[in-house]
Amino acid sequence: MNVSIIAIGDELLIGQVIDTNSGDIARMLNPVGWKVNDVQVIGDNADEIHRAIDRAFAVSDVVLTTGGLGPTKDDITKSVLCQYFGGELYENLEVLENVKEVVSKRGIKLNDLTASQAIVPSSCRVIQNLVGTAPLMWFEKEGKVLVSMPGVPFETRQMFRDEVLPQLLEKFHSNIAIEHRTLLVINYTESALATKIAEWEDALPPHLHLAYLPKPGLIRLRLDGTHHDKTFINDELNRYHRQLIDMLGDDILFTEDRSVEEILLHYLNETNLTVSTAESCTGGNIAHLITSVAGSSSSFMGSVVAYSNEVKHRVLGVNDETLLQHGAVSIATVEEMAQGVCTTIGTDCAIVTSGIAGPGGGTAEKPVGTVCIAVKTPQAIASDTFHFPGNRSRVIDRASTTAIIMLINQLKKLKR
Amino acid sequence: MNVSIIAIGDELLIGQVIDTNSGDIARMLNPVGWKVNDVQVIGDNADEIHRAIDRAFAVSDVVLTTGGLGPTKDDITKSVLCQYFGGELYENLEVLENVKEVVSKRGIKLNDLTASQAIVPSSCRVIQNLVGTAPLMWFEKEGKVLVSMPGVPFETRQMFRDEVLPQLLEKFHSNIAIEHRTLLVINYTESALATKIAEWEDALPPHLHLAYLPKPGLIRLRLDGTHHDKTFINDELNRYHRQLIDMLGDDILFTEDRSVEEILLHYLNETNLTVSTAESCTGGNIAHLITSVAGSSSSFMGSVVAYSNEVKHRVLGVNDETLLQHGAVSIATVEEMAQGVCTTIGTDCAIVTSGIAGPGGGTAEKPVGTVCIAVKTPQAIASDTFHFPGNRSRVIDRASTTAIIMLINQLKKLKR
Repeated sequence: MNVSIIAIGDELLIGQVIDTNSGDIARMLNPVGWKVNDVQVIGDNADEIHRAIDRAFAVSDVVLTTGGLGPTKDDITKSVLCQYFGGELYENLEVLENVKEVVSKRGIKLNDLTASQAIVPSSCRVIQNLVGTAPLMWFEKEGKVLVSMPGVPFETRQMFRDEVLPQLLEKFHSNIAIEHRTLLVINYTESALATKIAEWEDALPPHLHLAYLPKPGLIRLRLDGTHHDKTFINDELNRYHRQLIDMLGDDILFTEDRSVEEILLHYLNETNLTVSTAESCTGGNIAHLITSVAGSSSSFMGSVVAYSNEVKHRVLGVNDETLLQHGAVSIATVEEMAQGVCTTIGTDCAIVTSGIAGPGGGTAEKPVGTVCIAVKTPQAIASDTFHFPGNRSRVIDRASTTAIIMLINQLKKLKR
Repeated sequence: MNVSIIAIGDELLIGQVIDTNSGDIARMLNPVGWKVNDVQVIGDNADEIHRAIDRAFAVSDVVLTTGGLGPTKDDITKSVLCQYFGGELYENLEVLENVKEVVSKRGIKLNDLTASQAIVPSSCRVIQNLVGTAPLMWFEKEGKVLVSMPGVPFETRQMFRDEVLPQLLEKFHSNIAIEHRTLLVINYTESALATKIAEWEDALPPHLHLAYLPKPGLIRLRLDGTHHDKTFINDELNRYHRQLIDMLGDDILFTEDRSVEEILLHYLNETNLTVSTAESCTGGNIAHLITSVAGSSSSFMGSVVAYSNEVKHRVLGVNDETLLQHGAVSIATVEEMAQGVCTTIGTDCAIVTSGIAGPGGGTAEKPVGTVCIAVKTPQAIASDTFHFPGNRSRVIDRASTTAIIMLINQLKKLKR
């Protein structure tokens, strides 16, 4: 089943807001084998919305729109949809009740503008928005469906998953299975990896397709299979996935699509070890990444962000002499920080960074992008100096990912 | 000048990668008064790419494509462009030299696949990619321009800013000025704010337009002005911006479009005070946000992420009795954490969070989303308990923003 998405809102076209709804929807459609054919991002403009719907219906049976439904003057999607599908705008009392309930849960008063969310086209079937005030609207035309959803990402994510998708699946039936297998590969550039597996890739059968998805510090290989026989395609994917795993050996970080922080927590759980972080240039980002994962509190105990040398010395016990002789960005300092944070926070393992994220602070000897990383397990300390390209946020990202991968590799060694 | 953007890549349509390039490009076009008319996100499919270019040329004079240029088999944009604009693919020796240089800077060896980046259509003018291996390609057709750019965000950002945009501005000339003013408003919902300023908004002249852009914890009001006379429109914007400021008074967080962490650092600089954070449920996110800002090291000294009660007690000096009697998520605990982190890290101010981000850990008395926040300045401690809706990452985001805004409000009081 082909799906087209239309993201509506002037704020998307001037770059003040990034459209994350399309990606969220696509990720929920993958498992059921439906394919997003295209995404159109357009402004709050009646002609553009009209044209975009025409185009979408030309290639897809299901059209999903997000945004353009706010109660304020710049949002016109509802009246355009009413023109497109016919009927007239009226106040739907069930929607009004729902809006009142949502608003009262938020502890705020209902005003006229919010109440106007209850005005909907008579040509649609309303799906009540359980987490926001803008109702979802289901339109049909010549056997095709358009569903208008809010622009607020968490509302759309939840309502699409719980209401829209099940109702779409009920209306349509798809008998093509699309399945994926993912492999996370380290130590390779994209083209070096492609060269390494070129022969194998050339021999892939037509129902399998390989995609390279580089991320900071690693490459995600995604093997897609499309076939009407779900069992067959899963067997095929398992077989070829296994071949890739055998070919790439130790350069495989993980055999499923997980974030590096999830993989780290997986290995900490397996080895029954706890972790803390001591961060200078990454400024708490590694702790933030780890604690973004639900359940991280069983392995992650805490962190010291040591931006100043005084904190490195006083809270983490780094020798003043080490700082004086080698500098804050040095292997000697990060190794002492690793020992120190394990003691201060009371953990088995540690991840430590100290570097120059820029744009200021670089020297000839230690230019911007220089980052020293140390990781500690009960058996060893591993450390290294890196030179990451790019601006401040890129250096922080790369340093964070690299540091997490370094500890994963040490934990894998423990397991053997 | 109208611009259409086409983002190419299967990975964008299954939601594994989010298209941030379009937003980056839009933000660089705003100041020169060029407008992104629409963004099309499509897969690595020859027919789709062909159709998307046709559509884009139908509404815009400038078409920018990103992605689909990698050296691996799934990227076909280059050959589609060659078909579309004519000519044939050939090896461009200057591009080959550039690819060799970029690769050698990265300390890796050139292989055949990467070398194939030097193969380009004879119908294009190449713009050398100074930060990556995929060359940029400039095509012209009936006075209109298409520029093909890489998919890697930092490459496109840098090359568009430094090379493509200046060359486009040279080719075309625009005499419409589009200017913005922004205002960050707190303490209002979107519709309550719209009601408050309805009369003023209704009386706006046709060359001004107001947009509501809700963000977690605040609403961004953007006043856009479009006019051929740049001085006139700037005067108008200043006048109406001033009126908004006078109307909203203390509910204005800031009168320019800055992130809350940038605003915090602005007021810390003005008051010459330093800050640390002690984070439980936000897990280092506040430290990460603050240290993402270049130059933050002059005000931010460090942070303790205290996920376990033991760390709250041992590193931050929270009394065991307080933890036992009130629990980790309590006003008493966060206030002691605020005192403690100022002592441990050695700062004037502190931002502290302790809460239940979920999905586990909630109780009837303290459900998921309950977060206690304390902020400390040399003159006062302010604290409050909040109930944030949504999933784990939303609770972390809302708690972080709310905590930063709380300290900003305290710092503003000090200034008076």
